[in-house]
Amino acid sequence: MTVKPVNPVDPTALRHVLDGRWAAVRDDVREQMGAIRLHPDPDLSTEEHRDRVADGMRQLAESGRPHSGFDPAYGGGGDVGGVVTAFQMLGYGDLSLLVKAGVQWGLFGGAVQVLGTSRHHDEYLRAIMDGDLPGCFAMTETGHGSDVQSLGTTATYDPAAQEFVVHTPDPSARKDYIGNAARDGRMAVVFAQLIPGGRSHGVHGLLVPIRSESGEALPGVTITDCGRKAGLNGVDNGRLTFDQVRVPREALLNRYADVAPDGTYSSSIENDTRRFFTMLGTLVRGRISVAGGAGSATQKALAIAIRYGETRRQFSDPATGDEVVVLDYLAHQRKLLPALATTYALHFAQEELVSAMHDVQAFGATPDEDAQRALETKAAGVKAVGTWHATATIQACREACGGAGYLAENLLPQLKADTDVFTTFEGDNTVLLQLVAKGLLSEYGAKVKALGTLGMARFVADQVVGAVAERTGARALLERGDLRDRAHQRRLLVDREEHLLASLARRLRTALAPGADRFGIFNAAQDHLLRAARAHVDRVVFDAFAAAVERTPDAGVRALLAQVCDLHALSVIEIERAWFVEHGRLTAAGSRAVTAAVNELCAALRPHARTLVDGFGIPEGWLASPLLGNDPTEASAPAEAALA
Amino acid sequence: MTVKPVNPVDPTALRHVLDGRWAAVRDDVREQMGAIRLHPDPDLSTEEHRDRVADGMRQLAESGRPHSGFDPAYGGGGDVGGVVTAFQMLGYGDLSLLVKAGVQWGLFGGAVQVLGTSRHHDEYLRAIMDGDLPGCFAMTETGHGSDVQSLGTTATYDPAAQEFVVHTPDPSARKDYIGNAARDGRMAVVFAQLIPGGRSHGVHGLLVPIRSESGEALPGVTITDCGRKAGLNGVDNGRLTFDQVRVPREALLNRYADVAPDGTYSSSIENDTRRFFTMLGTLVRGRISVAGGAGSATQKALAIAIRYGETRRQFSDPATGDEVVVLDYLAHQRKLLPALATTYALHFAQEELVSAMHDVQAFGATPDEDAQRALETKAAGVKAVGTWHATATIQACREACGGAGYLAENLLPQLKADTDVFTTFEGDNTVLLQLVAKGLLSEYGAKVKALGTLGMARFVADQVVGAVAERTGARALLERGDLRDRAHQRRLLVDREEHLLASLARRLRTALAPGADRFGIFNAAQDHLLRAARAHVDRVVFDAFAAAVERTPDAGVRALLAQVCDLHALSVIEIERAWFVEHGRLTAAGSRAVTAAVNELCAALRPHARTLVDGFGIPEGWLASPLLGNDPTEASAPAEAALA
Repeated sequence: MTVKPVNPVDPTALRHVLDGRWAAVRDDVREQMGAIRLHPDPDLSTEEHRDRVADGMRQLAESGRPHSGFDPAYGGGGDVGGVVTAFQMLGYGDLSLLVKAGVQWGLFGGAVQVLGTSRHHDEYLRAIMDGDLPGCFAMTETGHGSDVQSLGTTATYDPAAQEFVVHTPDPSARKDYIGNAARDGRMAVVFAQLIPGGRSHGVHGLLVPIRSESGEALPGVTITDCGRKAGLNGVDNGRLTFDQVRVPREALLNRYADVAPDGTYSSSIENDTRRFFTMLGTLVRGRISVAGGAGSATQKALAIAIRYGETRRQFSDPATGDEVVVLDYLAHQRKLLPALATTYALHFAQEELVSAMHDVQAFGATPDEDAQRALETKAAGVKAVGTWHATATIQACREACGGAGYLAENLLPQLKADTDVFTTFEGDNTVLLQLVAKGLLSEYGAKVKALGTLGMARFVADQVVGAVAERTGARALLERGDLRDRAHQRRLLVDREEHLLASLARRLRTALAPGADRFGIFNAAQDHLLRAARAHVDRVVFDAFAAAVERTPDAGVRALLAQVCDLHALSVIEIERAWFVEHGRLTAAGSRAVTAAVNELCAALRPHARTLVDGFGIPEGWLASPLLGNDPTEASAPAEAALA
Repeated sequence: MTVKPVNPVDPTALRHVLDGRWAAVRDDVREQMGAIRLHPDPDLSTEEHRDRVADGMRQLAESGRPHSGFDPAYGGGGDVGGVVTAFQMLGYGDLSLLVKAGVQWGLFGGAVQVLGTSRHHDEYLRAIMDGDLPGCFAMTETGHGSDVQSLGTTATYDPAAQEFVVHTPDPSARKDYIGNAARDGRMAVVFAQLIPGGRSHGVHGLLVPIRSESGEALPGVTITDCGRKAGLNGVDNGRLTFDQVRVPREALLNRYADVAPDGTYSSSIENDTRRFFTMLGTLVRGRISVAGGAGSATQKALAIAIRYGETRRQFSDPATGDEVVVLDYLAHQRKLLPALATTYALHFAQEELVSAMHDVQAFGATPDEDAQRALETKAAGVKAVGTWHATATIQACREACGGAGYLAENLLPQLKADTDVFTTFEGDNTVLLQLVAKGLLSEYGAKVKALGTLGMARFVADQVVGAVAERTGARALLERGDLRDRAHQRRLLVDREEHLLASLARRLRTALAPGADRFGIFNAAQDHLLRAARAHVDRVVFDAFAAAVERTPDAGVRALLAQVCDLHALSVIEIERAWFVEHGRLTAAGSRAVTAAVNELCAALRPHARTLVDGFGIPEGWLASPLLGNDPTEASAPAEAALA
């Protein structure tokens, strides 16, 4: 493979491509907040940081931006995609503000919007949008985080009083890690087993006041503070315990189910599990927003590390005696450039996700169950892969900046600490990938059924050919083809995805046999299942990037993006190359060629590294740090000294 | 492969094996400090944390433990291995204390001990041991961290005054990230280009007072504070700038070189570079200690995550309806158990390293250059691999504990934040691995030379056979052999190590040609070089574990350790399996068998997981956290409430 150099590109032209469908929103946010130094002082105490973030919340509310995501009928802007785009840009600043805003307007406000009906909207939406009713999203319990269907909190209906009694039956049912709970929240959407007429209908959300206007916990509600965390210390996470707390019947968020005054339960969805997951599905926005926030933080970390890598020099070139800029070293490029390429891929995948969500969840749109389910699967996958990528990449950026990267003043420590929890909140990544696999398996089952006899025979034949190729290892199936050919890259990724899924389905079929050890069979295949999910997400993310390259009008920008897309695709294939060789998709020589190609692409993209991070369009104020020599507080110090 | 279950083992018996040569020291430390709650309050401000650590330093000094590492002639204990063993156990507690103690007694005290002579020992050693003379190790500069041979600080000799003038010529020569500098240090070993008689003889260390007894910076010395860091906030890192600061001629640490009153320079080592690296080499203790501290922190994180994984339940087994303990899931085992196995391997490698250091650097021992060089290479390798392993494993433990792992009260955030910098301080890991590779290359060159003609012919023939096997990919060379066979595992690891090194040597030989682009050739091979170093360290670490299994007297413990060693070896091979297949060492089927074997070993070791972490012998007080339900502050809360 020979990588041809591409011409320099104007970062602004690149930014236009990256900005995508909500470019105007992005520009607005940049203008509105670009001049503000958004990083929290690293020496703030927990309470001071919370104060600061509370101020930020007020500023956000006053900006009117959070309103843009709500129903136009209630003074909202109806622009779901726009508000999520704006929200994820907060990831360039203080992530505590991002998360607190997400709790208030995304989770709490979102739940009232999508799970409630006009009686809740009329009463609360305005105050929620304005930030006058700070609220919580009380789902997770100490004993149940991933398996929220098994929550222990109960909401038992008392027909005599026409009230629900919300109760925490045991310590494991205590609501835990609840954002906005420790200090500011006055109301919570509490998820509880709904028990009207003596039988549980599964988990539902209810609006439960938790604090008075003066900030005291209401009778029956015990609130404690989760205290200091690894990061996000501007968010007041807390714990809620309910001791027979009574709320009116109307507190039930009743879009999908209701309880009549006499205690009769009714729902448009009969099955408890299906209903619960339908309700959960409407809340997919939170998961998408976290993925977006992680993306912004990753971009910022890369901008810092790559700009530093272009100025930091260490060790001399023996020929010239000059010290070498560290980004000229292959090892340094290897640390940062494939990660940068994947960050681009995830950016476009995220853009697609936001766009799909905007269309599926538009106010007034006809609900499309298939589209909604596809959105949920995609959101779970992109969130898992994107947040793991963030953790790994921010870590690599920290290390690439050495000791300077460890100092709070250089911003990387905060990014690292704040985003760390993204891999396990809004769905634990491992559990999310299982969700993705589950979705793929049921889709696959339906497809196999639909094939009919002839199709099935052909399908089986394909599988046999593949298996033979694997056993003989004679000639790799996909060996021929240029690694730089987009179609060839796609064939490799699609083939892996399909093979992993088909073999998984075959393997799990044994669990259907009578008397089979279902848990044992599923558990033994868990790594296979996670690989299948990962392969699917890899292909989806690749497709998003490839589509973005295709639609880029400017030929120069397109050429650069094409090379970045190559680096992304080949570095994914490189990471997984053992699988490709094990399954006869690449020969040993082909596999080594992938590594060589990644090295070549790193060298080819090295001159464009700065352009590629400038293309994110992160305002300079959000990157200000001594490391980059653009720290306004340092620059202004002499002036302040002169005044003193 | 079939993995046979092994019998349960008494954790105490396991601990005896792990405790090794300095078992008595370990028991002493456990007894001395096991009852103290060593974790810093996570809400401490930077200054409060520094105060707390300063208290800890006083307690340590009073315990007499730091003395044990110094020369018996000056009241020390002469037990280098023992003091490092005790030191690394501080990694179970507050790592700020570990690092501050390391700066005072390891780096500062160590430099005075090994680079100084009786004039320095007589005057300072006692005060250093007692903690009455807090000091700094001022090597790193803002512009030079990895390439310390190019430091900018100068120490110019003035024969008229018989003084050295220590000076910071430009901002890049500012001493940076210096522990103990921002607040407590009163003296520093300053590394500077030594310029007697107008010419530089390279970097040397000098003792430079920086603060008065009352804590004021001395004239000509500017001290600033590095401020908040990602972690280790109990350590006062600072920056030092010198403006023509004069120190007497005797301030030069003159074990390896001296300057006569008239300015004549003399040294037993003629070559500036060799001298400098000889001096640096004596300071290897710092690097070894960091590796040990990282090991302790990793063990603690695993103890927390595995114990939590045995109590935390999520999702139900469809057959029984009971919720499943999360450590029963293969995916969870995969996250923690191979990491646990590698932590065992690194523990034994570290023990070997400390032991070798103790013998090589014993007071009164005859210097053995070869042994010293081997020690340095091994220390660099184990430090790099061990600290990266710590970062990855502590991260995995945090994620394995979900939201609970993100709360400061559960100790993982502090472990993660504190150890993060270990990958880049005391030598950047990437640079250290290059050092390892360099050492291997020169050893290899000498070996090839010594082979003679006949040996060389056989050697070349071996290479050709290997290359043919790779090209045909027909039958993997090392395919036959049981994956559970220790000798077979070793063959795989050795073969990889040797092949990577030989092919690297061949590749780099082209750089010797006249007119060759040396930088270009070395840079293009940098990933190859790093892989070779890594392969070497993998083999060294494996050998240490295998040797420990061999020498374990108790058959039951030995059987368990053997299985853990299998898991370690096979998970290393699994990570690198693409290489083995690419190079004809494993067939595709053999590669897949490795993955299957790792899964089986995870299942087999699952019942022993708790025993394996209990074997570390971490006192319960150091693990106390709400997550494990053993938090003394929580348990005592009712009693305190009763008193109020």
